[in-house]
Amino acid sequence: MTEEMKIIGSKAKAASRVLLNMGSLNKKEMLYKMAEFLKNEADYIIEENKKDLQNAEKNGMKPSMIDRLMLDNKRINSMADAVIAVANEKDPVGIVLEGETLENGLQVRKITVPLGVIGIIYEARPNVTSDAAALCLRSGNACILRGGKEAINSNVAIVKVLRNALGSIKINPDCIQLITDTSRNSATELMTMTEYLDVLIPRGGAGLIKSVKENSRVPVIETGVGNCHVYIDESADLNMAANIVFNAKTSRPSVCNACETLLVNEKIAEKALPLIKEKLDVKKVEIRGCEKTQAIIPCKEASDLDYETEFLDYIIAVKVVKDTDEAIEHIAKYSTHHSECIVTESIENMEKFTSKVDSAAVYVNASTRFTDGGELGLGAEIGISTQKLHARGPMGLKHLVSYKYIITGKGQVR
Amino acid sequence: MTEEMKIIGSKAKAASRVLLNMGSLNKKEMLYKMAEFLKNEADYIIEENKKDLQNAEKNGMKPSMIDRLMLDNKRINSMADAVIAVANEKDPVGIVLEGETLENGLQVRKITVPLGVIGIIYEARPNVTSDAAALCLRSGNACILRGGKEAINSNVAIVKVLRNALGSIKINPDCIQLITDTSRNSATELMTMTEYLDVLIPRGGAGLIKSVKENSRVPVIETGVGNCHVYIDESADLNMAANIVFNAKTSRPSVCNACETLLVNEKIAEKALPLIKEKLDVKKVEIRGCEKTQAIIPCKEASDLDYETEFLDYIIAVKVVKDTDEAIEHIAKYSTHHSECIVTESIENMEKFTSKVDSAAVYVNASTRFTDGGELGLGAEIGISTQKLHARGPMGLKHLVSYKYIITGKGQVR
Repeated sequence: MTEEMKIIGSKAKAASRVLLNMGSLNKKEMLYKMAEFLKNEADYIIEENKKDLQNAEKNGMKPSMIDRLMLDNKRINSMADAVIAVANEKDPVGIVLEGETLENGLQVRKITVPLGVIGIIYEARPNVTSDAAALCLRSGNACILRGGKEAINSNVAIVKVLRNALGSIKINPDCIQLITDTSRNSATELMTMTEYLDVLIPRGGAGLIKSVKENSRVPVIETGVGNCHVYIDESADLNMAANIVFNAKTSRPSVCNACETLLVNEKIAEKALPLIKEKLDVKKVEIRGCEKTQAIIPCKEASDLDYETEFLDYIIAVKVVKDTDEAIEHIAKYSTHHSECIVTESIENMEKFTSKVDSAAVYVNASTRFTDGGELGLGAEIGISTQKLHARGPMGLKHLVSYKYIITGKGQVR
Repeated sequence: MTEEMKIIGSKAKAASRVLLNMGSLNKKEMLYKMAEFLKNEADYIIEENKKDLQNAEKNGMKPSMIDRLMLDNKRINSMADAVIAVANEKDPVGIVLEGETLENGLQVRKITVPLGVIGIIYEARPNVTSDAAALCLRSGNACILRGGKEAINSNVAIVKVLRNALGSIKINPDCIQLITDTSRNSATELMTMTEYLDVLIPRGGAGLIKSVKENSRVPVIETGVGNCHVYIDESADLNMAANIVFNAKTSRPSVCNACETLLVNEKIAEKALPLIKEKLDVKKVEIRGCEKTQAIIPCKEASDLDYETEFLDYIIAVKVVKDTDEAIEHIAKYSTHHSECIVTESIENMEKFTSKVDSAAVYVNASTRFTDGGELGLGAEIGISTQKLHARGPMGLKHLVSYKYIITGKGQVR
């Protein structure tokens, strides 16, 4: 580990001990102050952001990516509002989850506490910097942020502003650490900092998540890769099915809860597929189908790779399957365990699908697009976990905590 | 990864899909059958255990270790009874943790599900084999067991018996996998099997835990290293304090919740230390004290290393501290975040200690020895987690699960 990373780690760790016991009102005030400073320093942040935009253009970045990178007054106001929204959420620390008085008179309380230090590795969007810092600090955690090199000037500016906000109310600015070395090395080093980091959350594309998952020695929470499926059962209401597929695929194709593969029961495929194609054609969705699909509607051929791919685009893979069991098998083979849906009127197939499909969110007759912290009432989210340890599905403030047992007695011994 | 490890991994993963939806009664029956087979095959297991005992003697193993390794009829009956006790615990799968109907009519249930495949790396005690298998299977998880080489013949025999038990009632024996290669390689490989393993739990000494923590890419739950502290505040009832220290140190020194370091407030050290020494002398506990301690009672000198050490023996390190803050600082520096205790009559110091000490269990006026699944009403435990992710403190059946969201609608789209 380089000396610089050690310093970042130990500063974050020391700062986390202050946050551990900070009162809820103080934490709220801290976030309000962060939002205030973001708004007041918008011009400075925009200036620094321009440097990133210039570099992006020079490097030939795609316009859709440049758009993600760009900050203006409106977007900085949104960032500040998002920080205020997190400030106004319920404090996840200090909640008594369980408690009892044992027969021997010991009083046991299981009470939520911060995790400690959270590392976040993310890509080009600079708003993640303030979002992640707000979620970590509101839940009493210090954070070490490591954004993408494309946004480095913006990130440095945002973190400077946020740290100044903390300093202005005499809170240790070390609660927020930014790694300014955006080489691969710094990410790799972060993944080994078990001494300083309690958890590492990668936010970004499949490549980033895979690399962190395979290399990190720090506990990781995998997020956000969604190869989501909709299965249309033979008993389905086909109009409902077409609506759900249309919504799940086209309402926002670039997000992780969008549908990527459609599975259709062979018994209703001849009726269902033309209905669905008609809808998808409105948005010019490219269909890649199996042989049976191609025999029913005109479309490209689907390869095995298509079934594995999170397109994040107006493309959908389609497969005609024999029954619910084959649909479940296909999902088991290709899914990233994010969100899957069955459209059905059969209790038997609903039960089979919901119990056997092993994903964070399993839907019956509803769009996969609802897998979202806001939609499910969990508040702002730091990511959507696709792993089973600690938290699964949308991760909000309440998942950024651990717990401890406080046990009080009158001299009991064992 | 060797071909053999791949086969073990993929077999366990395939078997875990059957366990995912196995009914609670079936899981109970499975464990009863395992217990029955253990009792019926006791002679065979004892025969195989003798080979391990012979090797142990040949290799000059310490008598206390040989005792841990040894199996007789009584111990095998205890193992079987432990399996039955786990069978009779409440099924942790299928519990609706939360649920609501959203404004748009979507019905959301958050429901517990098995983790999938659990890996356990452990050391010489063969009873861990049946304990771990029972806990994993009762909670719907397949397991991959990797015990120490000292117990390999016993472990092979026990797993064979348990797998036969499964086979006898037509359950896939692959739910229980044993790694028979006890070289360092197999452990290292297990730590890279992210494709097959959902979590890896090391059970054993500090060296094993450290090695797994530092090297594993599979999510790990650290367990069991307990450098536990008792702090005697100036306001403490000194007789109560002496009782607690005596119990925490001597009732079972070889376990992780035993006290290893005593911290004494300087204002009462002159009264407290002789009282405590008198008690500890009964069990011939070796005291290693700081300078101030040595000025009050006759004892050896404590080094920095002593404050770091989990003695697991009749040895205790002692330090006289200025106040509660210094005690908290000492604990922050040396503790393994397992269990710590304050003996006090002061609300202020109690609050300070319980909120600032960042350990799985924090006691007020009670022995650290209560950190135990059975004592705290959590049932049989697979270990005591000293990390903050997923589970902290004693881990029982209810911690061997994840959850998923099941969301049912009537065609809702977003």
